[in-house]
Amino acid sequence: MVSERMASSRTFCVGIYAGVGSRQETAARHGASHFLEHVLFKGTRRRTAEQISAAVESRGGELNAYTTKEYTCFYARVLAADADLATDVLTDMVSESRVRTADVDAERAVILDEIAMHADDPGEVVAEQVADAVFAGSGLGKMVIGSPASIEAMSRDTVVRHWRQHYRPGNLVVAAAGDVDHDRLVEQVAALDAMPQPGAGPRPDVPTPDTGLTGLVVTRRKVEQVQAVLAYRSGGLFDDRRYASGLLATVLGGGMASRLFVEVRERRGLTYGIDAGETTYSDAGMWSVEFACAPERLGPILDVVRGQLDAVAEHGVTATELADAKTQMRGQTVLSYEGPSSRMGRLGTTALLRDERSLDDVLAHYDAVTPDELRAEAGRIFGSRPTLGLVGPKVPAAATRPWA
Amino acid sequence: MVSERMASSRTFCVGIYAGVGSRQETAARHGASHFLEHVLFKGTRRRTAEQISAAVESRGGELNAYTTKEYTCFYARVLAADADLATDVLTDMVSESRVRTADVDAERAVILDEIAMHADDPGEVVAEQVADAVFAGSGLGKMVIGSPASIEAMSRDTVVRHWRQHYRPGNLVVAAAGDVDHDRLVEQVAALDAMPQPGAGPRPDVPTPDTGLTGLVVTRRKVEQVQAVLAYRSGGLFDDRRYASGLLATVLGGGMASRLFVEVRERRGLTYGIDAGETTYSDAGMWSVEFACAPERLGPILDVVRGQLDAVAEHGVTATELADAKTQMRGQTVLSYEGPSSRMGRLGTTALLRDERSLDDVLAHYDAVTPDELRAEAGRIFGSRPTLGLVGPKVPAAATRPWA
Repeated sequence: MVSERMASSRTFCVGIYAGVGSRQETAARHGASHFLEHVLFKGTRRRTAEQISAAVESRGGELNAYTTKEYTCFYARVLAADADLATDVLTDMVSESRVRTADVDAERAVILDEIAMHADDPGEVVAEQVADAVFAGSGLGKMVIGSPASIEAMSRDTVVRHWRQHYRPGNLVVAAAGDVDHDRLVEQVAALDAMPQPGAGPRPDVPTPDTGLTGLVVTRRKVEQVQAVLAYRSGGLFDDRRYASGLLATVLGGGMASRLFVEVRERRGLTYGIDAGETTYSDAGMWSVEFACAPERLGPILDVVRGQLDAVAEHGVTATELADAKTQMRGQTVLSYEGPSSRMGRLGTTALLRDERSLDDVLAHYDAVTPDELRAEAGRIFGSRPTLGLVGPKVPAAATRPWA
Repeated sequence: MVSERMASSRTFCVGIYAGVGSRQETAARHGASHFLEHVLFKGTRRRTAEQISAAVESRGGELNAYTTKEYTCFYARVLAADADLATDVLTDMVSESRVRTADVDAERAVILDEIAMHADDPGEVVAEQVADAVFAGSGLGKMVIGSPASIEAMSRDTVVRHWRQHYRPGNLVVAAAGDVDHDRLVEQVAALDAMPQPGAGPRPDVPTPDTGLTGLVVTRRKVEQVQAVLAYRSGGLFDDRRYASGLLATVLGGGMASRLFVEVRERRGLTYGIDAGETTYSDAGMWSVEFACAPERLGPILDVVRGQLDAVAEHGVTATELADAKTQMRGQTVLSYEGPSSRMGRLGTTALLRDERSLDDVLAHYDAVTPDELRAEAGRIFGSRPTLGLVGPKVPAAATRPWA
C-alpha cells in the first residue's frame, strides 16, 4: 500500500496492481490475464456489471483497467468526495467477483472483437510482430491479448485459476495519489489481505535470453504507407546501461530537434515524423526507431537512419547534445509527474517491480552519464543485429536487402 | 490576452490562438490554415527551424500546434522557469516567420505524407466522410488538412496572404495558465499588436445551413471490422438546445453504464465498444454514435441503436438517469479542468469564440434541463434524417437498407 498526498489536488486517483501479465502465462493460458481483467468488471456478490460501471461514472469519475506483459492495473480517478466509493468498487471487483460462465462467454466475444480491431491497425501489428521477434523465446514476445485460438478455448475454470493463483497478498499493490487519506485507505482495502492463498500454479516465466530472432519481419497490407520499426535489444529496468540508452534515444529521436527528425523530416522531407524510444521491462528492453512512409522512401530513410546510428556509435555526440538531452530528460520527467494519475502510476509500478530508486535517484543517474559511456552504449546497441518490422504495401527489394 | 494563475502549479502553459481554420478557406486555399501552421515552425529572422524546436524541447518542454475547422493553436508547456523562453519562441514564430519558398516546398511533401497517413486510418476516414455529408454546403464539411490537389497547387504567396489576412490584432488570442506572471506576459506578446493589418481578403465562411446531405456514405476497405458512425445535426455552441443534447449523449453513450454500451456490449456482446457524443462548432453541431464491429453484426447493432434512440424520443429517460447524467457531466467537467493545459485551452477557445459563459454558468444550464426538454430534444434530433458512414469490408445489404 503506497500513497502520496498532494496538498492542492481536488482529485483522488487509486489503482490496484496485480503482478501478472502475458509473460506469466503458459500456452494454454495465453491471454488469461487480459481476459480476467475484462471479467472482473462483470459483477460481484454486491454489484452487477452495470452497478460497477455506474457507481464511478455517474459521479463523473473514470473507472478502467489495462493489462501489460508484466502486470495488470485496475484504477479510478474521481473527485476527492468520491474516494471511498471508488476504493470500495475496485476492492470489490478484485476480491469478490462472481466470474459466472455466462459472463466469461460474453467477454470472449468482446475480446475476439478486440483482437480483430488490433489486427486492423497496421501500427499495432508492426509493434507486435517486432516484439515477438526481439523477445523470441521469452514471455515478453507474446501478445497481451492472446490469440483467437487461445481465447476461443479459454474456460471459466482457467480464468478463475489464473485469478486465484496471481491475485493474492504479496502480489498485489494498492497505490493512490492526490487528495488521499492513507489510514482510511488501508482500512478499506483490508479485504485484499483476506484473499485465498493457494499453492503455486504453473510458472512459465523464464529469464529473457540476451538475443531474440533478428532480421526482417514483414506483413503485407493494402494501405498507402509502410509502417516501419527498427529494433534492437537493450537493458532492462535495473540495468545501469539504461541511463545511457535512454539519453541515446533522446538525442537521436526524442522530438523535433533530435538528429533523426532533423535529418529525415526537416532537411529531406521524407516522412511526417520519426521517433526513437525505449520499451523497458524488468529484465530486458527494446531500443527502437519508428516511422511511416511512402514505400519508395523506405530505402532512403533507412540509409539516413543507419548513417546516423553508425555515426553516434563511432564518434559519440557533442557535449552540447548530451547536456541538452539531460536537461530535456529532467524537464520531461518533472512535467510528466505533475498530476495525481501519473504519480499513482509511478508509485504502483515501482512498488510492484520492487524498484527502490526515487525519482531524484533516477535523474542523478542520467546526469552522471559521460560522453564515453554514451558512445560505448551506442556501439553495443547498434553493433548488435537489429530486427526490421514492416507492415504495408510492397516495397522495393533493394530497400530491405541489407536488413534481411 | 487571458490568463489564470494556479497557485500550486510548477508548470506554465501558453497558447496563441488564431481565429482561422478550414471553414475560412476558399477552394483555392483549401488546407492553407494547416499548411501555414506547419510553415511557421520553419524559421524566423532570429531562429532556424532547429533552434525553434530545440529551444523548448531541450528544456524538457513541449512545443506544438494544431489546426481545427475554426481556429489554429500554437502552444507550449514548460517548467515555470522557462516561461519567458516559451512565450518568446511562440511570439517570434507567429509574428516574424520568414516563410521561405524552400520551406513551403519541404512542408508540402510532409503534408502529402500526412494526408496518406490519414487515408490509411479507417477511423479517420469515416469521421471525415460523415462530417462532409452532415455539414455539406458549408465550410465545416471540408477537411482541415486539404486535398492532395490543393496542397500540390499551394504557392508560397497563397500561404503568406493567408497568414497576413488572418493573423492580426483582433483575430489573435493569447491564453496562459499555471505559474503565470500576467504583466510580464502582456509585455512579451506586444509584438503581436504590431502585426500588419491588411485589408480583408476572401471571406468564404458562410452560415452553416440547417441540414446537410443525409443517407449512406460508404468506403470499402480490406480490413476485418467495419467502422461505423451514425450522425445527426444538432445545435451549435451558443444554442440553448445543446445542454439537453449533451445530456442525451451522456445517457445514451457516455461510458460503460450508458444505455447503448449496456445493451450492445454488456447484454449482447456485439462489439468491443460503442459511444455517443457531440462535436460542437460555433454555429452548428453533430450528434453521433460510433462503433466498430464484424460486418455481420452491423445490422443487429443498428437495430438495437435505433430502438434505443426511438425509445428515448418517445418516452424520455428516467428521473434517475437524468440526475446521474447531470452529476456525471459536473464531475467530468471539474476533473477535466484540473490541469494547466486544459485551463489554457478553455481560456483560449472561449475568448476566441467570444463565449462569455463561465464554467459555473455552463454547469448551471446543464442542471436546469428538465425531463420534458430532454425528450423534446431527443425527438428533434432523432426525428431528423441521419447520415450513416461506413468504412470497411462489404456488409450484408439488409443492414444498410433502412439507412440509404
